[in-house]
Amino acid sequence: MTDGHFDKIALIGIGLIGSSIARAVKLKGLAKSVIISSRSRETLDRARALDLGTDYVLDAGEAVEDADLVIVSVPVGASGKVAEAIAPHLKPGAIVTDVGSTKGSVVAQMLPHIPKGVHFIPGHPLAGTEHSGPDAGFAELFQGRWCILTPVHGTDKEAKRRLAAFWEALGSKVDEMDMEHHDKVLAIVSHLPHIIAYNIVGTADDLETVTESEVIKYSASGFRDFTRLAASDPTMWRDVCLHNKDAILEMLARFSEDLAYLQRAIRWGDGEKLFDLFTRTRAIRRSIIDAGQDTSAPNFGRPVPDEKA
Amino acid sequence: MTDGHFDKIALIGIGLIGSSIARAVKLKGLAKSVIISSRSRETLDRARALDLGTDYVLDAGEAVEDADLVIVSVPVGASGKVAEAIAPHLKPGAIVTDVGSTKGSVVAQMLPHIPKGVHFIPGHPLAGTEHSGPDAGFAELFQGRWCILTPVHGTDKEAKRRLAAFWEALGSKVDEMDMEHHDKVLAIVSHLPHIIAYNIVGTADDLETVTESEVIKYSASGFRDFTRLAASDPTMWRDVCLHNKDAILEMLARFSEDLAYLQRAIRWGDGEKLFDLFTRTRAIRRSIIDAGQDTSAPNFGRPVPDEKA
Repeated sequence: MTDGHFDKIALIGIGLIGSSIARAVKLKGLAKSVIISSRSRETLDRARALDLGTDYVLDAGEAVEDADLVIVSVPVGASGKVAEAIAPHLKPGAIVTDVGSTKGSVVAQMLPHIPKGVHFIPGHPLAGTEHSGPDAGFAELFQGRWCILTPVHGTDKEAKRRLAAFWEALGSKVDEMDMEHHDKVLAIVSHLPHIIAYNIVGTADDLETVTESEVIKYSASGFRDFTRLAASDPTMWRDVCLHNKDAILEMLARFSEDLAYLQRAIRWGDGEKLFDLFTRTRAIRRSIIDAGQDTSAPNFGRPVPDEKA
Repeated sequence: MTDGHFDKIALIGIGLIGSSIARAVKLKGLAKSVIISSRSRETLDRARALDLGTDYVLDAGEAVEDADLVIVSVPVGASGKVAEAIAPHLKPGAIVTDVGSTKGSVVAQMLPHIPKGVHFIPGHPLAGTEHSGPDAGFAELFQGRWCILTPVHGTDKEAKRRLAAFWEALGSKVDEMDMEHHDKVLAIVSHLPHIIAYNIVGTADDLETVTESEVIKYSASGFRDFTRLAASDPTMWRDVCLHNKDAILEMLARFSEDLAYLQRAIRWGDGEKLFDLFTRTRAIRRSIIDAGQDTSAPNFGRPVPDEKA
C-alpha cells in the first residue's frame, strides 16, 4: 500500500472535520472505500447528497467492520460511547484515531475499550473554521496546518508512521507530543482564546447603556474579530471546557491575574507599563506571520466593503 | 464648493488614518491643496516620497494657515498640544476635526484652545488595520465604515453638514452621538477587545510550561486571531487606555465578572450554562455579517496556506 493510503477508511462523525477529511481523501484518492457514519439520519443524508463517501450507515459499529483506518470526529464528550460501540467490530491491525481537541480525556474514555491488536493513536489536526456540519468542510482545510499525534505507551511504530503519512498526504505537518503537554499547549493557543471570545461577546450582549444594534454597527473597530471564534460549534466547545478543565482553569487564572495587573495600570495611569506590554505583543504577531500561520494582509485580508455597503 | 470638497485641507499627523485620508482625497479630487504636517521629519519625508499631499511642513501652525478643513490624526494624548499649536493660525470659518478613538478627552483637551469663529467638530472614523505609519494607509480604508461625529453644544449646522459630506465622499456612513455615549460604545466595541487581545498575548508569552515557539506554531487554532489586534500601534493604544479610563474600567469590571461566572461553570462542570452562552453568541456573529460589517467567508477569508507551507 502506498504511503498515506488505506483500503477502507471509516469516518465516525461527518461534521466540519470529518467531512473535510472525506473530501480530501476523495480528491487525493487515498482510499478505495470510505464508510461514513453519523448517529443523525439528517446529517447522514446530507453527507450522501454531498457524495462524501462510498457507503453511509447510522451504526458506528457497522461502519468500522473491515476498516483499516477509523477516524472518530465527534465532540470529545462522545468519544467514550463511540469507542464502546465500535470496539467489538474493529479488525485486528486496524488503526483507530480521533481528531478531538483534548487528548487526556479522550484517551481515558477510549483506550479501555480498544481491543488488543488494534492500534489506537490519538490525534488532533489543528485546523477548523467557525462553521460546522458536513457542508462546512473543504479538502484544503488541513493544508499547511499541524496535526499533533499523542501516542500512548507501546504504540506500534509502523502504525504511527502510516497514520502520519495519511495526515501528510492531506497536506498537514505532523508533530508528536505527550497528551498532558498537548492539553496545556491547546489550553493556551486554542481553548482560552475561544472562551475569552465567547465571554466578551456575552458581555457586550448584556449591556444596558450600549444597544446590541450599536455593538453590531460599530463592530469593525475590533469587536468583530472575537465574534468569529464565538460563532464556533457550541457542543464541541462545551465538551472542550468540560474535558480539559484543569489546564483551562490554570490558563484562566493566569489570564485574570494579568488582566488585573493591566487594569491597575489603567486605573493609575501607568502609561509606561501599558506601552511596554503593547510593544512586546507586536513581535509575536510578526513571528506567527513569519511561520506561515497567518496572513500579513491587513485585517486578515478581509475584502474592502462596497462603497455603498 | 461641491459637497465634500474643500479648497485647502491640512492634515496634522500622517499615520495610518491621516495617510488614508490623504490618499482618498487625492483619488477623489476632494481638495485643491493638501498640506501635510508631522512633527517627525522622517515621517514627513516618507509622506513626501509617497506623494501624499501638495505641501509638507514640520510646523502644525504653519500647516493650518488658510486651511478650510483641518484634520488632526495624532494619538489622543497629543490632541491638546496640537490644538494649542494650531490655534493662533486657524482661519475664521475653518472646520477643525480629529479622528481620535476617545472623544470626551479630546474635547476637553482641544476645545479650550479653539478660537471663536472656528468650527470644532470632533469625529471618529471607525476604520483601521493593525498596521501603522504613512505606508500603511490606503484610499479605501473608510469605504462602508462608520464615521461618528460628536458635535459640541452650539455647533454650526452648515459646518457639520459639510464635514459629514466630506466623510461620505470618502465612502463612509456618518453617525452622530454625544461624546459620553461614544466613549461607552467604543469602550465595548473597540477598547475592551484590544485590551483583552493584548492581555492574552501577554499571558501566552509568559508561560513556562508552553514555549513561545509552540504558541507560534499552533496559533492557527484560535490564538492568532487575537494577535492582529495586539499588533496595533502601542502609542495610540496607551493613549486610548489613559484617556477613556472610566468607561474602560467599567467594561473591564463587567468582563471579569462574566469571566468569573464562566470559570465557575467550567470548574463545576455545568455544561448547560456553557452551552447556553456558546449558543447565543453565534447570533451576534450572524447579525454582524448581515450588517455588512464582516465577511461570511470562513476564517475571515484568509488564504489557504500552500501545501508545503
